[in-house]
Amino acid sequence: MSKFTFLSLFPSLILPYFSDSILSRAIKNGLFEVEAIDLREFADNRHNKVDEPQIGGGAGQVICADVIDRALSSIATPSSHIIFLTPSAPQFCQKDSIRLAKKEHIIFVCGRYEGFDERVVEMWADEVFCIGDFILTGGELPALSLCDSIARQIGGVLGNEDSLCGESFENCLLEAPIFAKTLKKDEKFEKKSPPLEFFKGNHSKISSLKLNLSELRTKYYRPDLYQKWKNHKDRK
Amino acid sequence: MSKFTFLSLFPSLILPYFSDSILSRAIKNGLFEVEAIDLREFADNRHNKVDEPQIGGGAGQVICADVIDRALSSIATPSSHIIFLTPSAPQFCQKDSIRLAKKEHIIFVCGRYEGFDERVVEMWADEVFCIGDFILTGGELPALSLCDSIARQIGGVLGNEDSLCGESFENCLLEAPIFAKTLKKDEKFEKKSPPLEFFKGNHSKISSLKLNLSELRTKYYRPDLYQKWKNHKDRK
Repeated sequence: MSKFTFLSLFPSLILPYFSDSILSRAIKNGLFEVEAIDLREFADNRHNKVDEPQIGGGAGQVICADVIDRALSSIATPSSHIIFLTPSAPQFCQKDSIRLAKKEHIIFVCGRYEGFDERVVEMWADEVFCIGDFILTGGELPALSLCDSIARQIGGVLGNEDSLCGESFENCLLEAPIFAKTLKKDEKFEKKSPPLEFFKGNHSKISSLKLNLSELRTKYYRPDLYQKWKNHKDRK
Repeated sequence: MSKFTFLSLFPSLILPYFSDSILSRAIKNGLFEVEAIDLREFADNRHNKVDEPQIGGGAGQVICADVIDRALSSIATPSSHIIFLTPSAPQFCQKDSIRLAKKEHIIFVCGRYEGFDERVVEMWADEVFCIGDFILTGGELPALSLCDSIARQIGGVLGNEDSLCGESFENCLLEAPIFAKTLKKDEKFEKKSPPLEFFKGNHSKISSLKLNLSELRTKYYRPDLYQKWKNHKDRK
């Protein structure tokens, strides 16, 4: 069974995310487990202080290396894969998610304040990740996002494994627009009919139309991904 | 005061994130407010069903347009800015965060299953966003990530506003490594000393070294950002 450990200064923000939805069911079914550990437990001073100003100056506090070192020394095992969440890192993507779903134990180390003392990242991190080009108050949401994305790749977590096929990002294309079958008569929506081809049931025509729509949408929203897709297509 | 409304099938996953940390303090200080609304309240059938299979076939259920339409008709006001979270969208970035911090009311519509019926996105969305090139079980974590990133730009939310200056992504560069001042004597860390320049207190030298380290790190982890930075620098 896979295990995900979150090391955070705010462990109470972590577990409620797993209290409902398909992930809570998967945990109840024993498909994976999660735990949240309070980094402050590993402070070694009376005030449980874990942060200090920066060497060389600069705004904001830094999480001390020795605190994280003590925490990881106590919770990591040889099979643990340790990921630090920090904005100064490559962006997590779907390929990482599929790869990491095979790990036995992942420890997410969540940053706060200005970030981690670099020395402990060098010493302990198997990988560092950010989720996107924006700043957050902490690494808890990025850690939860990685965990969610990785966990749904574990066998049995999604009810319908077909949902894992042809997803956005796997082939550099965003998904085509989708439409729900029963839409009650409603004047508001009458002028917005899905493509007629969708109703006719010719699956090869529907597929090719969907591919077309995927390409258009990717070109519009994500010219960077579209370029990758085009290069890939041209090589074939 | 800014207000953030989350429209979700799992509203219980939302509010616990604001129960601790700097954001909880900002809410207590009246700097912004958050609410989570259960999308299922707007179902119009006995079983509170909100999803249907796709027109044209394909794995997974689609959230019905009429349910979201009823929900938004009931909660949106003329000053509401409506954001749908879906993987088929541009990536949210720091510039969006700064821009959206000026909005009075943001409604985050969180997807689940295969996503939203496209018709309701067309009808209601001011913007659509994803957070990165990976798939999640729902739009709740992306919505929380946007909210966190936007909220910390609101005046007074961060204790020290200096922390907002020179952050990663604002100028296409990742931040340089940082080091905490007091690291107790520990053999483990002795061989990993921060650059000596950091200790000498010459701030212009420290700044230029940090810029150097930022460039190196960006080049290594994010060649795409580094290219943008280089283009920007060459134009100057």
